[in-house]
Amino acid sequence: MKRITLLIIAIATLAGVIGFQARASRHLPTQEATPIFLTRIPDGYREWRFISVAHEEGNLNSFASVLGNDIAIKAYREETLPFPDGAIIAALHYRFIPSVENNKAFGRDQSFVAGDPTNVQFMVKDSKKYAATGGWGFGHFNKDGKTVDDAFMKTCFPCHQKIKERDLVFTRYAP
Amino acid sequence: MKRITLLIIAIATLAGVIGFQARASRHLPTQEATPIFLTRIPDGYREWRFISVAHEEGNLNSFASVLGNDIAIKAYREETLPFPDGAIIAALHYRFIPSVENNKAFGRDQSFVAGDPTNVQFMVKDSKKYAATGGWGFGHFNKDGKTVDDAFMKTCFPCHQKIKERDLVFTRYAP
Repeated sequence: MKRITLLIIAIATLAGVIGFQARASRHLPTQEATPIFLTRIPDGYREWRFISVAHEEGNLNSFASVLGNDIAIKAYREETLPFPDGAIIAALHYRFIPSVENNKAFGRDQSFVAGDPTNVQFMVKDSKKYAATGGWGFGHFNKDGKTVDDAFMKTCFPCHQKIKERDLVFTRYAP
Repeated sequence: MKRITLLIIAIATLAGVIGFQARASRHLPTQEATPIFLTRIPDGYREWRFISVAHEEGNLNSFASVLGNDIAIKAYREETLPFPDGAIIAALHYRFIPSVENNKAFGRDQSFVAGDPTNVQFMVKDSKKYAATGGWGFGHFNKDGKTVDDAFMKTCFPCHQKIKERDLVFTRYAP
């Protein structure tokens, strides 16, 4: 149900995006269509600094570690909003699994750790390139490094728009 | 019950440590007593790279982000065991709390994030200085930056000894 709602919102949003691009193209007829999703993984993201962690229950059953490049970390620490161009936020997702060895050490079942990696998601700030999606380019790469279908990607922006007051970024900085 | 068991193990271990130091002191009568716990927070740990995440249920109800300095990260990636001297591993702990804003965006209660910071724990590898505790110096600093009582600290080593095959380090590297 939720997925369908998101898709409806995504389609409505996309219609707006296409409408916008169609109008824009009247003024810039030779310009290429704006790439609205990331097509390659940003370099060196695994070396970036730590922003925060998250866990999603349900179908996702995920552990996330959210990292930021230098521009993103600086913006977070100085509470700069909107995020400046060049900021990139990465969410590294893993399975949320019980730790048999930790539980054995604790003497009870209480410990959960990161299991297999599942995907990495990105938000890249470029207020011109991604003007149609709030200045953010969204990316999702499965553990084989491959992107996913556009129908899925079109759900990113409408959901992130729900947190407009923090420039579409849900994750808060963990001190 | 578990705490008591840990304390008993800790006391037994401490007895061994004291015995060891007593013997050592016969040869080096003027040497100061070995500091077995960290007394100050390692510099710059919040800039370190990401190792993995963890969640503990129960009384701890914690989210951990585990970071490593350059020596620790290199050792993890190259699977070097034991960890070389100079390696430092930091566990940044936060309250595990539901995210009202994320749940609203998802349309259901499924999201947990890092709440207030609670403490930061460290393991510092120095095979000489911390020879009595497997080459690791343990540290625990509450959010006010203060250390905790020795009785608590003495539970670190006996528990970490349970994972001797990974040089006393429970956390595995998340790719």
